[in-house]
Amino acid sequence: MASPDAVPRTAGPEGAASRTAPPLEADAAALRAFLDGPHAAVRDAVRARLVEQATLLDERVDLSRAELRRRVRDEVVAIGAGGQAGYGFPPQYGGGGDIGASVAAFETLAYGDLSVLVKSGVQYGLFGGAVLQLGTTRHHEAYLPDLVSGRLLGCFAMTETGHGSNVQALGTLARYDADTDEIVVTTPDDASRKDYIGNAADDGEVAVVFAQLEVAGQGHGVHAVLVPLRRDGAVLPGVRIEDCGAKLGLEGVDNGRIWFDEVRVPRANLLDRFAGIGDDGIYHSSIENPHRRFFTMLGTLVQGRVSVGGAALAASKVALEIAVRYALRRRQFEASTPSEEDLLLDYGMHQRRLLPLVARTYALSCAQEEVAGQLHRVFSADAPDDRARRALESRAAGTKALLTWHATATIQECREACGGAGYLAVNRFSALKADTDVFTTFEGDNHVLLQLVAKGLLTDYSSDFEDLDQFGMVRFVTGLAVETVIERTAAHQLLERIRDVLPGGRDGWDQEAGLLDPDYQLAMLRYREEHQLAGVARRLKAGVGVGTAPGVVFSTVQDHVIAAARSHVDRLVLEAFVARVRSQPEGPTRDTLAALCDLYALTTIEADRGWFLEHGRLSAPRSKAITREVSAVLRRLRPVAGELVAAFGIPAEVLGAHDLVG
Amino acid sequence: MASPDAVPRTAGPEGAASRTAPPLEADAAALRAFLDGPHAAVRDAVRARLVEQATLLDERVDLSRAELRRRVRDEVVAIGAGGQAGYGFPPQYGGGGDIGASVAAFETLAYGDLSVLVKSGVQYGLFGGAVLQLGTTRHHEAYLPDLVSGRLLGCFAMTETGHGSNVQALGTLARYDADTDEIVVTTPDDASRKDYIGNAADDGEVAVVFAQLEVAGQGHGVHAVLVPLRRDGAVLPGVRIEDCGAKLGLEGVDNGRIWFDEVRVPRANLLDRFAGIGDDGIYHSSIENPHRRFFTMLGTLVQGRVSVGGAALAASKVALEIAVRYALRRRQFEASTPSEEDLLLDYGMHQRRLLPLVARTYALSCAQEEVAGQLHRVFSADAPDDRARRALESRAAGTKALLTWHATATIQECREACGGAGYLAVNRFSALKADTDVFTTFEGDNHVLLQLVAKGLLTDYSSDFEDLDQFGMVRFVTGLAVETVIERTAAHQLLERIRDVLPGGRDGWDQEAGLLDPDYQLAMLRYREEHQLAGVARRLKAGVGVGTAPGVVFSTVQDHVIAAARSHVDRLVLEAFVARVRSQPEGPTRDTLAALCDLYALTTIEADRGWFLEHGRLSAPRSKAITREVSAVLRRLRPVAGELVAAFGIPAEVLGAHDLVG
Repeated sequence: MASPDAVPRTAGPEGAASRTAPPLEADAAALRAFLDGPHAAVRDAVRARLVEQATLLDERVDLSRAELRRRVRDEVVAIGAGGQAGYGFPPQYGGGGDIGASVAAFETLAYGDLSVLVKSGVQYGLFGGAVLQLGTTRHHEAYLPDLVSGRLLGCFAMTETGHGSNVQALGTLARYDADTDEIVVTTPDDASRKDYIGNAADDGEVAVVFAQLEVAGQGHGVHAVLVPLRRDGAVLPGVRIEDCGAKLGLEGVDNGRIWFDEVRVPRANLLDRFAGIGDDGIYHSSIENPHRRFFTMLGTLVQGRVSVGGAALAASKVALEIAVRYALRRRQFEASTPSEEDLLLDYGMHQRRLLPLVARTYALSCAQEEVAGQLHRVFSADAPDDRARRALESRAAGTKALLTWHATATIQECREACGGAGYLAVNRFSALKADTDVFTTFEGDNHVLLQLVAKGLLTDYSSDFEDLDQFGMVRFVTGLAVETVIERTAAHQLLERIRDVLPGGRDGWDQEAGLLDPDYQLAMLRYREEHQLAGVARRLKAGVGVGTAPGVVFSTVQDHVIAAARSHVDRLVLEAFVARVRSQPEGPTRDTLAALCDLYALTTIEADRGWFLEHGRLSAPRSKAITREVSAVLRRLRPVAGELVAAFGIPAEVLGAHDLVG
Repeated sequence: MASPDAVPRTAGPEGAASRTAPPLEADAAALRAFLDGPHAAVRDAVRARLVEQATLLDERVDLSRAELRRRVRDEVVAIGAGGQAGYGFPPQYGGGGDIGASVAAFETLAYGDLSVLVKSGVQYGLFGGAVLQLGTTRHHEAYLPDLVSGRLLGCFAMTETGHGSNVQALGTLARYDADTDEIVVTTPDDASRKDYIGNAADDGEVAVVFAQLEVAGQGHGVHAVLVPLRRDGAVLPGVRIEDCGAKLGLEGVDNGRIWFDEVRVPRANLLDRFAGIGDDGIYHSSIENPHRRFFTMLGTLVQGRVSVGGAALAASKVALEIAVRYALRRRQFEASTPSEEDLLLDYGMHQRRLLPLVARTYALSCAQEEVAGQLHRVFSADAPDDRARRALESRAAGTKALLTWHATATIQECREACGGAGYLAVNRFSALKADTDVFTTFEGDNHVLLQLVAKGLLTDYSSDFEDLDQFGMVRFVTGLAVETVIERTAAHQLLERIRDVLPGGRDGWDQEAGLLDPDYQLAMLRYREEHQLAGVARRLKAGVGVGTAPGVVFSTVQDHVIAAARSHVDRLVLEAFVARVRSQPEGPTRDTLAALCDLYALTTIEADRGWFLEHGRLSAPRSKAITREVSAVLRRLRPVAGELVAAFGIPAEVLGAHDLVG
């Protein structure tokens, strides 16, 4: 494979090639075009709107929870009224019919107040998405025009107190009463109350309720039903709503709990795209297998995960721009001259703390662009493509997990890097930390999502892809399916797969290549992924083989499962970054991006160098050389750090933090 | 060295010895006695007080900032009025004369509301400590009785907007006016305003102000002066105070900014234990070197750092008890049987997420007990012991850094492990996260503190200890002192030091020992520390030797400096834990503690196994064996997890989080 990268790659593997590379020149506008991608115009429109509402970011600091909720609701309604909520909805209902644009818009909205973002996400993404994806024309015509324009506020009532991750085991009941041709929705116990439901405490007029559908005494699994909650602001009979009260963050979102006491709705309120009840009162579905039906329904809602990941990315960018700009202004201690203190970013440790996070943010931006594009293609296609959908679901799950953890870690590091000033609410970190904190657990707990990713990968080992249910990872591992998969995975097959990822299939490849060769970096991540995946398969087989209880086998192997999934996503992220960099024309912008890509790749390898050393893929001298190379890349990027964050395109009014950024 | 540990150590180094070890039995009361240490009675007294004020923990969720501040102030005053603020003050001023007790009391107070804790710390620790340590009898008699009993609230006005870490460069001026025999305190510019000062915005009547003292036109460096701020609630002429406003956390503490415009106070207001102005108007000091004088003054305030570390530890315990108890109640997914979902803590990944944090919390408790004991001895001694003081300052700095980072990481992991329920304010994580967040940067930024630790260690390389100023790390490295130190550190001397830490000085020691042998674990951490320290010295010498600018040398080597300091503290922590475990009588409690100690030691080595592999101190198979051993220890500890956290002794009313812990 030829490496078209412009940075000279002449230094030997043990030297720090970046040390002698020419200085970088960076153009923030060109880098911004790279990050903004194909939907730059949509992003700019949202930026303009954010500037208009930017006063909320300062004012919210002193608002009560009730006042903040009102302000946030007004803003969410205004977004719909202004036509900015509908990018992804069909044109006939007031939308723009462009799913990619809707993801870009949501991501950009996350530069601003995150309560506005999340309440918008509940309204237009979850509630709107469920009506659109799970309903049929009669639901679309009845609900979407008011929904998309912000006139009808609604809830997405899936999570229950007793079931957050294992939603297939929800307790809410939806019983079809043939005598009255109605569906009767009931909360059987407190564990089955709907919980943490956005828009429920104050504003929601109707909810998409996920419940166990029962027709003629027979259960058919979880389905979605539209249930009115309020009329003219008053909660309807049979519905009980409780405010979730104060939260760690997102205080502008009115989360609540809902109980249903034999609430009756017409049969037509069942969202019946995948399954319905006929005029004859008989249940029917185009998908026979109940598990597959459930996961097909869930799969249509994948945009929520893609959107949360994008929002996490935007929040990381806000934190990084503040911290990097502060480090380019703030001086402390005389290190270089006795007369003036040094800039924070001239300290090596400060570069080490912030710049790898900048590089990772660029890498994850490319990965997010990739998954958003995939989402757009899958949901814009005329004919459904099951394989593409599964690939999308897996990628969305993995990317969401890495992006949201990245946000948590990045915002924390940036807060600490801004010292006491970073602790003042006026400087944004307070809201950034608090509001993003739940991202790692909502729209799918990150660990559960990585298990889903791993399940998909293990399934790939099986030639008979179609035999497997779209089941939760735990059941998958503990069920018979395991043996099916594992038996077919002969040891030599695994080894071949691993050998396939080595450049040219040759031995010693990893000792000779230049550290700045993207093909070397990619091969390292591919090797780790394949090796870990094979290890999981082997361990599962061994455990089940000696008769250990499946639950125990899974428990034992679970950290390997998570590690393999993480490695998989790391590889996808690097591939996306390398591909985007390679697609750029030669010149200073590509050189800068290539240096960022090196920094991301090398710090990713370095962070897990224990594993690479354990598995003979790094020698001790080479491992140390990676650390030296990282330091050299950091120093190379230092002079362009300001441009790297200016490229995020966060309007000054929205960035705020004037104490810190000047 | 003999290993008296009760756990069988018979398995070979590559096996997982813990797999075949007998089941552990744990007695929460015995473990609690271990953790409570010598001041159990004081801790119990504070626990009783916390139970009385526990309603604040629930009520604060819905209080405005102003209301919360009032509640917190009342509580802080009540603590003084009730005689619980004075453990560390001399008996003649209403105190208990027991510094160890005061640290234990403060640590325990941190189980409750952290605004109460921090405002108490400002009042009785920082303000009270400065008057006690920097003042003389006339200040003690005039201020301490009212201060200790909560009748006089005051501030510790050190930090300025422009100078948080480099406090020696503060801008506030204190000029002695011989004509009026007064000191004139002035804020020359906005960068020199006092900032983030606790008790300043609402309640402080007087402040200990750190300022550049000028006598007869000559500067003498930073000194402390008592300056009245308010009388009968009104701010005095010449003083301007601004509220810092909303913060990320600690909203019950009234932080503010203070400007002084030629404020005149009597000469007697200079806190003159180490330096004063005579009746003749001439400056005098018992410490000639101005740097040493400054750091001697600062050094007397070390209790603040010890206290913050203890508070971070207590907050970690609250988070861990909630998360572990939740994981012992909450079920999700059927993994083991089709009829019932599994407990979260039966999942291997969940054990991996929580139990090493429990073990580390035990380890850090021992380290904290050690530093608190050292503090008590140094400050209770009749004659000053400079060497002991320096050792204490270094240990306090390092322990504070590790404890506060541990709190941030632990609280975050515990929040995520409690899912959406963890996001509700009623479940404590909201306040725990927000309130502790600043711990990593106040009372010394953690990175700056670790540099201080490293400086002390490098100084030890020099035989002529006394020649070195107690200077900031950066100046130390960039100043002439570097060469003094490095020149005397011959390479063979370094190697000898490293060899000294190996058991018996023999080769191959680290390939033969049992993984559960504490002497092996300790030798590994000692080796890493010495090697990294020698590496820093070598790099500094090399950089300065080839004429590189000192600032650049420091910048390049800074991450090694931080790593060496961290390794040093890791070793101290393990030593403290091992020693405490060894001091226990044989029996089930010691067995449990030994398993926790193994878990701490092995996860610490595992986390940095890349380094050990790079430096030939772990072979690949042995490195993998450590991971297997960790898994085995986790499974061994799983059945006693509930007792491990019950031992923290957090009263149920104070723990709260009833949704999660039942």
